[in-house]
Amino acid sequence: MSGASAPAHRVRGRRPPQGEPVVDRALSLLAAFDAGHRSLTLGELSRRSGIPPSSALRLANRLTAWGALERGDDGRFSVGLRLWEVASLAPRGQGLRQVAMPFMGDLAEVTRQHVLLAVREGDEAVLVERLSSHHAMPVLYRVGGRLPLHSTGVGLVLLAFADPAFQDEVLARPLVHEPEKVPVAPDALRRTLAEVRRQGMATVRRASPAPLVTVAAPIFGAEHRVVAALSVVVPRGGAEPRQLGPAVRTAARSISRMLGAH
Amino acid sequence: MSGASAPAHRVRGRRPPQGEPVVDRALSLLAAFDAGHRSLTLGELSRRSGIPPSSALRLANRLTAWGALERGDDGRFSVGLRLWEVASLAPRGQGLRQVAMPFMGDLAEVTRQHVLLAVREGDEAVLVERLSSHHAMPVLYRVGGRLPLHSTGVGLVLLAFADPAFQDEVLARPLVHEPEKVPVAPDALRRTLAEVRRQGMATVRRASPAPLVTVAAPIFGAEHRVVAALSVVVPRGGAEPRQLGPAVRTAARSISRMLGAH
Repeated sequence: MSGASAPAHRVRGRRPPQGEPVVDRALSLLAAFDAGHRSLTLGELSRRSGIPPSSALRLANRLTAWGALERGDDGRFSVGLRLWEVASLAPRGQGLRQVAMPFMGDLAEVTRQHVLLAVREGDEAVLVERLSSHHAMPVLYRVGGRLPLHSTGVGLVLLAFADPAFQDEVLARPLVHEPEKVPVAPDALRRTLAEVRRQGMATVRRASPAPLVTVAAPIFGAEHRVVAALSVVVPRGGAEPRQLGPAVRTAARSISRMLGAH
Repeated sequence: MSGASAPAHRVRGRRPPQGEPVVDRALSLLAAFDAGHRSLTLGELSRRSGIPPSSALRLANRLTAWGALERGDDGRFSVGLRLWEVASLAPRGQGLRQVAMPFMGDLAEVTRQHVLLAVREGDEAVLVERLSSHHAMPVLYRVGGRLPLHSTGVGLVLLAFADPAFQDEVLARPLVHEPEKVPVAPDALRRTLAEVRRQGMATVRRASPAPLVTVAAPIFGAEHRVVAALSVVVPRGGAEPRQLGPAVRTAARSISRMLGAH
């Protein structure tokens, strides 16, 4: 349950090696922003990207002129709307979201809590959409944020239907359940994944930030490959996973059909 | 009503001048994508950006390595999820959207058609969010797409509350109503804008793509500046603007309050 607290910092904040091309440096500036750092001074931008201030300013000015960054009255930089416009064309982001939204809306009306849509990016899940009621329980999920594969509903679904070589790679690593830091036993996880495939859904119970239950189901694309996962998150004791399962699976099937799956 | 059909091509497809820095060339590659061109071959990428194929490939490979682009099994490039992740941090995109979504959801449940959220970017409106029912009438609006200021509900609101110098600039240009190409009389538009300010909302009736009515209201930010516009779009004859107005204005005020407006 660490969407906001555990983003992947593989690129962010890393000092680019000497002589790295200027495009990579510009991308490092973009990567300096994250959920906890949505607006940065030039100094912060320089520190977080590892690019010297004079060079960071020159690059930031070019990015700002194009609209990839915006500069406020206070001189702070933030991610620009122009970049957001281009990014809205990402097939795995907005494209998927557009197809899924009406079905997610139906599910949200029925469950009155949180409905999540996620895709796999490397060894994590990225939250593409979240619909939440006003009165839904607080969760840390953020659209554009990352979730671990091995301990979230959407993550387990994406992992269970990923290709076996990738699963072996993940299972070979030391994994822990956040935030309790309980180690994950590879054999237990392997059995869980088999169960997810058998049932066509994943059920996860968590104690923090509040007692909750997640039920997640796979979304299939045209080549019958799993392209995304859909889940509902409800407070423990609110609704039975037995009742939620059919609803989530039905909505996931509807989205799959719209994506051309048979 | 030309969200999908009239994007601004100010940067897209323009040939960069000789000696233009490499960052601008990389940005030109990103700008080669639009709603009608979500996946491009290397040749298309080169043609649309005006960058020679060898150089386009080198840049595209760097962007792909970082995740700003993705390359499919068929060799076509598309906008990458990593760019979408960074862009989700844009305060005027996802930040605004996150605050507005629950209220837009309420409005969508009540009106059962389309609810739009837009911000001004240069001399156009950019659609930040759209919620639509399954059975809503077809419209051309696309999230991330652009709308004209002078002939849409959200556009008129954003123009009416923009600073007077900007309004004069827009009014000085030859404007037409799409798709009929009817010229807009500056005096009539000026009176419309005054009326929008007086009523605190804009009402627009359109005949295409289907007879519809839009009612839009301003969303205020912390400095009592209009930062966005909210609207509902319903089929003509479906609901009365008299009834829709209070609903849209109420939701817009709720969002404004959440953004820190008094």
